[in-house]
Amino acid sequence: MNYAVILAGGTGTRFWPFSRELEPKQFMQIIGKSSLLQDTIRRIGGVIANKNIYIVTNFKYFYEVKYQVARFRIPEKNIILEPQGKNTAPAIGLCAQLIGRKDKDAVLVVLPSDHYIKNAGNFKNCLKRAIRLANNGLLVTLGIKPESPSTGYGYIKVESKSNGYFAVEKFLEKPDLTKAKAYFKDKRFYWNSGMFVWKASVFLDEARKYLPKLYAMLNLIRSTEDIAKIWPKIDAISVDYGIMEHSKHIALIPADFYWTDLGSWDAMNALLPKDKRGNVIQADCLDLDSCGVSVFSRGSRLISLVGVKDLIIADTPDALLVCAKHKAQDVKKVVEILKSNKRKEHITHTTEKRPWGSFTVLQSKEGFKIKLIEIGPKKRLSLQRHNRRAEHWVVVSGCAKVTTGGKVRLVPSNNSIYVPIGTKHRLENPMNIPLKIVEVQTGGYLEEDDIERFSDDFKR
Amino acid sequence: MNYAVILAGGTGTRFWPFSRELEPKQFMQIIGKSSLLQDTIRRIGGVIANKNIYIVTNFKYFYEVKYQVARFRIPEKNIILEPQGKNTAPAIGLCAQLIGRKDKDAVLVVLPSDHYIKNAGNFKNCLKRAIRLANNGLLVTLGIKPESPSTGYGYIKVESKSNGYFAVEKFLEKPDLTKAKAYFKDKRFYWNSGMFVWKASVFLDEARKYLPKLYAMLNLIRSTEDIAKIWPKIDAISVDYGIMEHSKHIALIPADFYWTDLGSWDAMNALLPKDKRGNVIQADCLDLDSCGVSVFSRGSRLISLVGVKDLIIADTPDALLVCAKHKAQDVKKVVEILKSNKRKEHITHTTEKRPWGSFTVLQSKEGFKIKLIEIGPKKRLSLQRHNRRAEHWVVVSGCAKVTTGGKVRLVPSNNSIYVPIGTKHRLENPMNIPLKIVEVQTGGYLEEDDIERFSDDFKR
Repeated sequence: MNYAVILAGGTGTRFWPFSRELEPKQFMQIIGKSSLLQDTIRRIGGVIANKNIYIVTNFKYFYEVKYQVARFRIPEKNIILEPQGKNTAPAIGLCAQLIGRKDKDAVLVVLPSDHYIKNAGNFKNCLKRAIRLANNGLLVTLGIKPESPSTGYGYIKVESKSNGYFAVEKFLEKPDLTKAKAYFKDKRFYWNSGMFVWKASVFLDEARKYLPKLYAMLNLIRSTEDIAKIWPKIDAISVDYGIMEHSKHIALIPADFYWTDLGSWDAMNALLPKDKRGNVIQADCLDLDSCGVSVFSRGSRLISLVGVKDLIIADTPDALLVCAKHKAQDVKKVVEILKSNKRKEHITHTTEKRPWGSFTVLQSKEGFKIKLIEIGPKKRLSLQRHNRRAEHWVVVSGCAKVTTGGKVRLVPSNNSIYVPIGTKHRLENPMNIPLKIVEVQTGGYLEEDDIERFSDDFKR
Repeated sequence: MNYAVILAGGTGTRFWPFSRELEPKQFMQIIGKSSLLQDTIRRIGGVIANKNIYIVTNFKYFYEVKYQVARFRIPEKNIILEPQGKNTAPAIGLCAQLIGRKDKDAVLVVLPSDHYIKNAGNFKNCLKRAIRLANNGLLVTLGIKPESPSTGYGYIKVESKSNGYFAVEKFLEKPDLTKAKAYFKDKRFYWNSGMFVWKASVFLDEARKYLPKLYAMLNLIRSTEDIAKIWPKIDAISVDYGIMEHSKHIALIPADFYWTDLGSWDAMNALLPKDKRGNVIQADCLDLDSCGVSVFSRGSRLISLVGVKDLIIADTPDALLVCAKHKAQDVKKVVEILKSNKRKEHITHTTEKRPWGSFTVLQSKEGFKIKLIEIGPKKRLSLQRHNRRAEHWVVVSGCAKVTTGGKVRLVPSNNSIYVPIGTKHRLENPMNIPLKIVEVQTGGYLEEDDIERFSDDFKR
């Protein structure tokens, strides 16, 4: 049987400020109306049965993944949660182990969840050919014909071609520009797409040879319950560095479809239609005489441009990026600095998702905080208590079911309720339409960690 | 006696999005901690007695002017309100008429309220010399030695110099670049600063000759009560075009101080200290390798820059400007477009000032609106009624005195109160500290014009 292993645990930093640690690139709608993860799942339709699609991610993305894959009827048990990120080799090995134990002949199609592919038909045909080769015991990778001397991709050097595939001479890490130029001129070099196809048993066999410690640890995992115990002992390593640079059984199929890893704002920009001055405007924008500018907005602010050139502007309620186009790769450095400065703008948006809906911080000042809370139909928050803040709730849309101090009551739109400090309370949407509440918190300490949960539908 | 006539009715558009129709440049703190208007008043200290300082503005700026000049003990009756803006000649004529009726020998120092001057000592000396000349019956102007072939200023061509001043040959409108270059080379040309000194009687005499209709109208004004009746009949005209281009009695004193009309973001930028890469950063800004960039923020958002050059970035909660430095003059075009598109971002900020304090719109959605209301010590809003919205108030700081339906009660911090649709109500701050209230409005129509006022401290 054929299986997909979709790697969806990464914390993309290159699309900051749109992507955040808690909203990485794979969950974003970059092009079109579904996310990159959803596009990845849709793209393998007809090749892999939905019940055979596995998604490797981590606890903090569980509800987002669950929400995003709901429409595909992928079993919840197929969402594999890593307690910590350990790079690609352990994640793939884990799936090889879990799937391989039940299906000895399982073929795994390993796919990143945050890449962009055009020509889905060609992609499917490639995959089918790769699966055939994998069944013959090869480690198959899809190689991309380089379009430029990029220093942002790893490269693969091939040998002779036979039976529609290349034997691989070696995997090469991201090169400097001089090397990249040489690779680009030489027809034997391909970009490493990070897409692999192999039998679970073959992969584990290669792991035994080249990553024996990982192999030994994986062998201790008999079911998902074992992961928590074993995972901390595993060393992080990429599949490229740990396996592909050593294996002697690699085959490369040249991709005949358009592919990009969407590694930067500029890569995304390249995909979008431009106006006649080369601008991409996805915002409430008033422009005078600009050219080569791309404007993306997740806020409601008016963005006005006067005579600017070759910029990427990405605006969100709490952070704005203005970046020279040729410097788009450096956005990840901004995120690194935010991290080391212990700022918050790389972690969450002002609107934070929760399993029950979302909340938006509208104002946060000494002594009070104002939030707009949106609760999905039939969803409820935990039964909880705050020890340092009181909460005023005004229902502005829908109808709330509110528990305070053991009493339950319905609070319809245009009504309000008060939750004193220290009172056990629960907020619930009993209706089939969304519930919107304005919450005004008052108190000397207003952080999210002042919460004591007594009962939670989401086991937090 | 000497008087100042400070013109403070203009709606500066060049500093958008910081300046708005309801918060023009003269009231902004551009450099330092006081506004340009306040700087203008302070600058004439020692030359003009505060009781002799008149400020011409209009109704919509009355409370702002009153607030800003309070510290200078300028009598409230000296704030002259034009029912409509009629350009400079009528505004100056009005003051000449009102002041001249009481003091036949009055000398008026006419000053724009939104310019920047360094070397206040030199400025004062210039003024004193100008006053002496004005007493001899001359129309005196302070001319600025051009620093560049600017097309943004009017020019003045002088003749011979005697007794420390030049006789003026003519006033010239803003030139095109070719003319500006010729003027700049020729030592006989000065920039028109818009600063004038003359006797009220002399000015009115010139008006009689060159603007007889205006003169006749002004003659009908015996006190400020007459303004409302006469003003609509007056034609708008600038003093330069109406008087200075015709008069034969003009003297120019060359300014020996630094002056700029702050006509654009770039002009402001020129005044500010730069870091070693030529950047001016007045914002929460994270910059990687940018140069020649000026960043100004009135919001709380993080602004991150990556490798950009020669930009002006001005950020506010509802509008962002990203402008090429050499295009700063075009910002006024943006405002014109906003006006013709009937947008709101050129009229007010999200925080709107009121005579009793201010409010900030935090969120405005279908069916509800959230505001943070700040009420100054001992101030109160009007007794009012809304016919299409209800209001929930949560007191987050201070203590409110609330009247609803005839009942009065005190609402301390962390308490809330509900004002149903159609209920007469009044909000008051009885304390000596600011009062902060979160207001959640609900209803189908939530605009500011749904208000019926029954009693108002501010006669609105």
